[in-house]
Amino acid sequence: MGINLTNFLSSKSKSKRMMEFQDLDHIDGVSISTVSANLYNSSRDDLVMFYFRDGANSASVYTQSKIISENIKWNLNQKAKKIFSLLINTRNANCFTGRQGYKSLEKIAEIISQKLTEKQKEDDEEPKKIKLKEIIFGCTGTIGENFPEDKIKSKIPELINKLKYTQNKLVWMKAALGIMTTDTQPKMTMEKCFIGNSEIKIFGVAKGSGMIQPNMATTLGYIFTDADIKNDILKKLLKKNIATTFNAISCDSDTSTNDMVSIFSTGKSKHPKINSINDEKLKDFDNALNKVLLNLAKRVVADGEGASKFITVNVQECKNDIEAKKIAFSISNSPLVKTAIAGEDPNWGRIIMAIGKAGVHLNYEKLSIKFGTIMIVQNGKVNPNYKEEEAAEYMKNDSIDIYVNISSGSKNFTAYTMDLTKKYIEINADYRS
Amino acid sequence: MGINLTNFLSSKSKSKRMMEFQDLDHIDGVSISTVSANLYNSSRDDLVMFYFRDGANSASVYTQSKIISENIKWNLNQKAKKIFSLLINTRNANCFTGRQGYKSLEKIAEIISQKLTEKQKEDDEEPKKIKLKEIIFGCTGTIGENFPEDKIKSKIPELINKLKYTQNKLVWMKAALGIMTTDTQPKMTMEKCFIGNSEIKIFGVAKGSGMIQPNMATTLGYIFTDADIKNDILKKLLKKNIATTFNAISCDSDTSTNDMVSIFSTGKSKHPKINSINDEKLKDFDNALNKVLLNLAKRVVADGEGASKFITVNVQECKNDIEAKKIAFSISNSPLVKTAIAGEDPNWGRIIMAIGKAGVHLNYEKLSIKFGTIMIVQNGKVNPNYKEEEAAEYMKNDSIDIYVNISSGSKNFTAYTMDLTKKYIEINADYRS
Repeated sequence: MGINLTNFLSSKSKSKRMMEFQDLDHIDGVSISTVSANLYNSSRDDLVMFYFRDGANSASVYTQSKIISENIKWNLNQKAKKIFSLLINTRNANCFTGRQGYKSLEKIAEIISQKLTEKQKEDDEEPKKIKLKEIIFGCTGTIGENFPEDKIKSKIPELINKLKYTQNKLVWMKAALGIMTTDTQPKMTMEKCFIGNSEIKIFGVAKGSGMIQPNMATTLGYIFTDADIKNDILKKLLKKNIATTFNAISCDSDTSTNDMVSIFSTGKSKHPKINSINDEKLKDFDNALNKVLLNLAKRVVADGEGASKFITVNVQECKNDIEAKKIAFSISNSPLVKTAIAGEDPNWGRIIMAIGKAGVHLNYEKLSIKFGTIMIVQNGKVNPNYKEEEAAEYMKNDSIDIYVNISSGSKNFTAYTMDLTKKYIEINADYRS
Repeated sequence: MGINLTNFLSSKSKSKRMMEFQDLDHIDGVSISTVSANLYNSSRDDLVMFYFRDGANSASVYTQSKIISENIKWNLNQKAKKIFSLLINTRNANCFTGRQGYKSLEKIAEIISQKLTEKQKEDDEEPKKIKLKEIIFGCTGTIGENFPEDKIKSKIPELINKLKYTQNKLVWMKAALGIMTTDTQPKMTMEKCFIGNSEIKIFGVAKGSGMIQPNMATTLGYIFTDADIKNDILKKLLKKNIATTFNAISCDSDTSTNDMVSIFSTGKSKHPKINSINDEKLKDFDNALNKVLLNLAKRVVADGEGASKFITVNVQECKNDIEAKKIAFSISNSPLVKTAIAGEDPNWGRIIMAIGKAGVHLNYEKLSIKFGTIMIVQNGKVNPNYKEEEAAEYMKNDSIDIYVNISSGSKNFTAYTMDLTKKYIEINADYRS
């Protein structure tokens, strides 16, 4: 929509962010192909396959919804040491499809297994038989419609035929485009880092843009690295970094039944062995992974349904993390705050309302509120130098930073959201028509 | 907006509801006047005074927000046995106004006390000196703007001059209009009931229509009766009946800093004495009070900002009340559910999503979902006879009934909400301009 992605990310490290699309090239051990299975009755790609020739260690976090899609059930049931394939489809969430949906995945996995095993025989000196449990699925789209097993099955041979062992920017872009639903922009990013003296790549793709609420892994996000990190350490790294990235965003306060963020580690880079999450050698990787996740999460928000403004809500100096997060999301999820920002109205009274309804006990004589660098409320009183015209001018920006200081402790939380516009209503009232 | 109030209420007892506006006449012991203090820079009435000539027993429930307005602080500080006056202003919430806001109320109360004491001397054989603590306030409007003490003070003499001892429909209508903010319709209702052989009246007025979320008393609602019921019993009656009425509605999931529902009992009806809330003689009154509160609460939702459809969410057969309420509000507050309904799209997958994100453990093979009488999901499966065209036809109604049956227990909860339309965005993006 109206947001310039480079613009809102530019405050951090513009030159680097500008580079990232160019830099997305090949990660050793990852192959990608995309195809249209006509799930949208159009020729857009709606099936994306990631293939790990020699398998990948992996970890995933899933939605905390009490109703989960059939593909997430499938994924949770597989206990393979290595994953060989991830297949993502759009248009159909495979949720509330019951046995039909689950059985379909099994049938599709059977064909993938057979065709990839054939491919292994053609390509590899030591061919491996790919097992069903080594295949996982990402699904996104409408809930409660029969899963289009036949359409998808018929396209598996073509998908596998198209797999190449060297990827370039274009194929990553096609993957990012292929997993989109109501997204208007593909979401990709990359970082480089070191483990020991070995340079490591971390690439990521993600999709939004509705049912985005912060409850465990939100939306679909897939991270790929050539590092060699064990499953249990990957899991800890992912969980830790999700908390301040994908779990710190909210578009519309709704949580999907299909949310999933996965990381795949192909182990192609030969670096010193990592034995625990506390290993000093992991630090740089840990930071880079956080950057990749945060960058993708921000892209999801910036492209949130109907978004015209990107909003960062910084809640500072709370007694504990939980309180800081409660206040940050109470503000981020308030329709009244989000519509005021859409209207470029510095109606900070609604911030007060949202702080109050968060249910956190606070001394409002210590409360401070800033929009950008404009101090509005200081120690519970309106700043005598506050000029509404200045704040109104600030509200015209694409990117709005709200600072709320509670002054009751030392814990901070930053949440990311976007404004609530008529476009959101349009998109969601007419979603299926 | 688009909702026909009589229409959505008609399923219950049409003829009676049609009568109610005509029936609102005089309640012994209640006087009303309204005036414009030019708070909106227009001539609309923005100050409403209720005067209880001989005092009224009363009880109130207030917002659970951790930031409360100065008038609510004032009201909580008053411990009078009887209330003599309630003054309501619109346009300014008197919230985050600090000492200025609180002091202003004191100054206004001083004038009210002085003028009402003079009136007592003119009118009464046994004149009473009205104390500050016998005066309470309702405020609604923008948060964080200086409270317009002078404008209000200057109008108190006129307000008190206009008080008459006999009220008619017109003066109730003016009171209901005078407390409106973004409301498009005044909200009034009445019931009659018996305590012993004495006929009792219960009248109510309320206002919406934004920041309406179910957390204790939501919005402003004022109930008046000529019954003679003690403060502590009034309090219990109000708390009990708020749970299934004002606390069962949600327009936009936001909670105001100013919410307040009060009941005033003038004691003018001479009926057998009531000694406890369990008194059998209270039953009819209890039911009538529930009807008054529910009717007002429904009117608040029906006139919710931008509403085009009234939505009733019936959650049935849960393990306990808390779970039933969680699911009901998860559905009622979901922007995706509300926009789908605005778009007349029977996208029941979003109901599934909202049930899932409520965080209540459930066996989805027992789950059933109906739109009106149309069975969509039965025991976790899509009803084979379900026809989407039928549901799409149903969605064209002004009033949509959603039934969700969890089949895990015996507890039900019904929540009331409305759809989310572009009009909501318009109203709230441009609220102050």
